[in-house]
Amino acid sequence: MCQPVRVADDVSAPEVCVLGLGLIGGSLLRAAVEAGRDGWGWNRSAGAVDAARADGFDADTDLVAVLRRAERSGALIVVAVPMPAVDGTLAAIAEHAPGCPITDVVSVKAEVVAAVARHGLQDRFVGGHPMAGTSQSGWDAGDADLFRDAVWVVSADDGVDPQIWSQVARLALDCGSVVVPAESVEHDAAVARISHLPHVLAEALALSGAAGGDLALGLAAGSFRDGTRVAGSAPGLVRAMCEGNRDALLTAVDETLDVLHRARTELAARGTLAELVESGHDARLRYEQRERWTITDIEPGSANWLERMRDAGRRGGVLQP
Amino acid sequence: MCQPVRVADDVSAPEVCVLGLGLIGGSLLRAAVEAGRDGWGWNRSAGAVDAARADGFDADTDLVAVLRRAERSGALIVVAVPMPAVDGTLAAIAEHAPGCPITDVVSVKAEVVAAVARHGLQDRFVGGHPMAGTSQSGWDAGDADLFRDAVWVVSADDGVDPQIWSQVARLALDCGSVVVPAESVEHDAAVARISHLPHVLAEALALSGAAGGDLALGLAAGSFRDGTRVAGSAPGLVRAMCEGNRDALLTAVDETLDVLHRARTELAARGTLAELVESGHDARLRYEQRERWTITDIEPGSANWLERMRDAGRRGGVLQP
Repeated sequence: MCQPVRVADDVSAPEVCVLGLGLIGGSLLRAAVEAGRDGWGWNRSAGAVDAARADGFDADTDLVAVLRRAERSGALIVVAVPMPAVDGTLAAIAEHAPGCPITDVVSVKAEVVAAVARHGLQDRFVGGHPMAGTSQSGWDAGDADLFRDAVWVVSADDGVDPQIWSQVARLALDCGSVVVPAESVEHDAAVARISHLPHVLAEALALSGAAGGDLALGLAAGSFRDGTRVAGSAPGLVRAMCEGNRDALLTAVDETLDVLHRARTELAARGTLAELVESGHDARLRYEQRERWTITDIEPGSANWLERMRDAGRRGGVLQP
Repeated sequence: MCQPVRVADDVSAPEVCVLGLGLIGGSLLRAAVEAGRDGWGWNRSAGAVDAARADGFDADTDLVAVLRRAERSGALIVVAVPMPAVDGTLAAIAEHAPGCPITDVVSVKAEVVAAVARHGLQDRFVGGHPMAGTSQSGWDAGDADLFRDAVWVVSADDGVDPQIWSQVARLALDCGSVVVPAESVEHDAAVARISHLPHVLAEALALSGAAGGDLALGLAAGSFRDGTRVAGSAPGLVRAMCEGNRDALLTAVDETLDVLHRARTELAARGTLAELVESGHDARLRYEQRERWTITDIEPGSANWLERMRDAGRRGGVLQP
């Protein structure tokens, strides 16, 4: 008989130490506490810490004190700072909390894994990426329900500790998400396709419309509005996200350039867009009809568990509570 | 003092003869009649005619009889058949209704203008394109309010008859739309940018997501969903629309390929997407902040009226009731 993967029920649920109390970190602290976990947070700026305290949360601006507390209690440390601050944060963890399990919520994974290895923390690290967000930022924008019914990737890289993997997966489940197991490089390739490429194409489409002047913009209707929506996002955020996943995004852009070149050639030579339009329509239907299924019977730490998890993730499988 | 352009008030409002009672033609007949105009329609298939009659409209399957009636009453003929049927419809008009003013509602204009010239009808033709539609088709999908607050392009090509131009503009206004004056080739270039290119990019984005398999599709969120929405449209309709505007679409695709190549090169060489993202964001803001203004003081038939109309249309001007 199939058994749900047991991370949700049996794994130890250590205290949660959240480093960075912006939108994602602040929402995570709220969600973990609401789920009954003990948790506290750190933020560099006092504003977020004051706001968190005013909302009844345990927070501090003293990174060393926070990390020593994590070390004493064996807390799961969540790195929730922006990518440029990850390296310094990992250095502090290596110095002051050398025994704690560590995860992160940064939107690219390979770059974080490389930084983790530079600090010799790879044995205690399991990366994560909750696919949730809003256009807002900061503690005040946080929401305990931000991760509810979201997808949370938990990295299934070679060499990860199965117990820490389960702790990270349990945190994601406690926050209301489903867990997708994926290797870091596969995660980055996937988000390049479905999150970063959409931004690149939206910017290009917006430019084409504006190049048509007020006549073209005045005729624009739903297809242009929806196709350019995310070009309205703050340029700094879009750049950080896309540039942080450069290699995978370049691959996705190059594939798309090939597709567009081929379509252009067919249209010019034979007057047809049949291949592009029919295959693109099939692809959209595949997206609309995708279905999650629940991964069962893969016990973290069992034989070939990482390969089996990754294979299940590739086929649309998720861990559910 | 500024005077609104007077097409809405003073121009004769002839009876309306709608050829083709699909979504657009059927909606137009309903809207014209609701606005107090006398109108009737023709459709090749008896199903649409029966449905129109059942809804209380005057409709017939006999094209020759319908055109002779139009000729007797001096009706404004609206060609609302699909592009492949335009040529045959124009041939029938040339034979049986040689004196009537003619317009159309086809989504590309240069190709229709060429067909009109082949049949020697250019002196009586003023093209039109109401920027409205749904994913449905056929008489039953029609709606008298389909054109309400929509943009209706009325072609301001050299040589058009000012009185017929005004009749066509008045019909658009009677249907609840605002009128954008534009040359046919400028219309086609504009809709390539804001209507056909969005479809091409949506298809390409859908393909990239699907190439990432169920893992990528399972991680997809709002940016992918919105960016691929129109890839869900019926492939036949997308192809007819895009392929019918081949030359203008090729220009738009080539510009976009240049933009994407340049961005790709910058990302690869210098790790930055600054130029693309910042200019794309500006372009989206320009779209969001676009404003219509009302064209005044251009009397159809007055000196340089076509140049002045086209210039106003390029700058976002519209005729309003």
